[in-house]
Amino acid sequence: MPRTARDPVATRRSLLDAALRVIREKGFVATSVDELCAAAGVSKGAFFHHFTDKEALAVAAAEYFSDGAAELFAAAPHRELADPRDRLFGYLAMRRALLDGALPDVTCLLGTMVQEVYDTHPAVREACAFGIGAHAGTLVADIASAKARHAPTADWDPESLALHTQAVIQGAFVLAKAAGDTRVAVDALDHLERYLRCLLPDIRA
Amino acid sequence: MPRTARDPVATRRSLLDAALRVIREKGFVATSVDELCAAAGVSKGAFFHHFTDKEALAVAAAEYFSDGAAELFAAAPHRELADPRDRLFGYLAMRRALLDGALPDVTCLLGTMVQEVYDTHPAVREACAFGIGAHAGTLVADIASAKARHAPTADWDPESLALHTQAVIQGAFVLAKAAGDTRVAVDALDHLERYLRCLLPDIRA
Repeated sequence: MPRTARDPVATRRSLLDAALRVIREKGFVATSVDELCAAAGVSKGAFFHHFTDKEALAVAAAEYFSDGAAELFAAAPHRELADPRDRLFGYLAMRRALLDGALPDVTCLLGTMVQEVYDTHPAVREACAFGIGAHAGTLVADIASAKARHAPTADWDPESLALHTQAVIQGAFVLAKAAGDTRVAVDALDHLERYLRCLLPDIRA
Repeated sequence: MPRTARDPVATRRSLLDAALRVIREKGFVATSVDELCAAAGVSKGAFFHHFTDKEALAVAAAEYFSDGAAELFAAAPHRELADPRDRLFGYLAMRRALLDGALPDVTCLLGTMVQEVYDTHPAVREACAFGIGAHAGTLVADIASAKARHAPTADWDPESLALHTQAVIQGAFVLAKAAGDTRVAVDALDHLERYLRCLLPDIRA
């Protein structure tokens, strides 16, 4: 039964949650406003009260997804570790653990949407680029500190490496979707960790 | 002007070329049969003479794209190098060179389609998985030989590393689409090369 417009915050949130679920399952273009309303349990009038169109919802969903990820990773136990290198490996372990689930639940809304509509929906592309960049940005300080401590003379760039971690994660999702299984994504994260261990040898060892 | 059905091989090829171009630009679902016919310069009758529906064309396009890539890489000069490690770095250099162009021309049809329709079009997913796996497979022998020669005691698996190279490449495309620029993809390939140099130190150095 469609929810009334009495609680606009809950209605908006239901639509954003529906967007995360349905778009990650079938893509942006295949997802209709009717379907999003049905999945959210809200009326079409409520939809258009909150969003001018499906593109506007996708932009808001990209921000909502990014904000959720930011909260999740900021609150993770590995953030408390003293060595920035340990925090990085803690991040990778958490990414690996987050792969334990069904593909539409564990893959990335941003990578999914930008792959499909990068050329046709510039506003969605920008929102996805902003979210991916912001998430990569949360790793730069740890990578830079770990480099200063464990590989001070190396010639690679912390910002570039932070983006590379996201390239590996996004590509791991693509291969997992192809395989219909996340094991290949876990393997890709193992390779990424081996690369980081190679770039950042443990000076305590 | 629509081409007549007199040359079925050319008609089929025009439709496959159109699929490569249009689907990489706007995705599978957003691409209509009408649009594919217009881009190929063929009639709708000709389309349905060759393909039962858009999904059948997408499956054939995945095979066509994979066959084209197989020919291109098999004929590359780096295949003539004596050391398998050099052939691997030659492959990466070629992938980097192939990034020089517009995003719809240089990105991967398989990764694009599987990201979008992995859950909704199993036949397309399978064709994409087959193509990505086959391409990764062309690297396994060189990786295994390079490992035997340059890192015989290492504990990583050549097949897994071959798949990982494809994860990086697919993720590099996602980040390039987000950025609207292939430079970030070149950076990801540089990181991949640094990883391979770390796994396969040059015993001649």
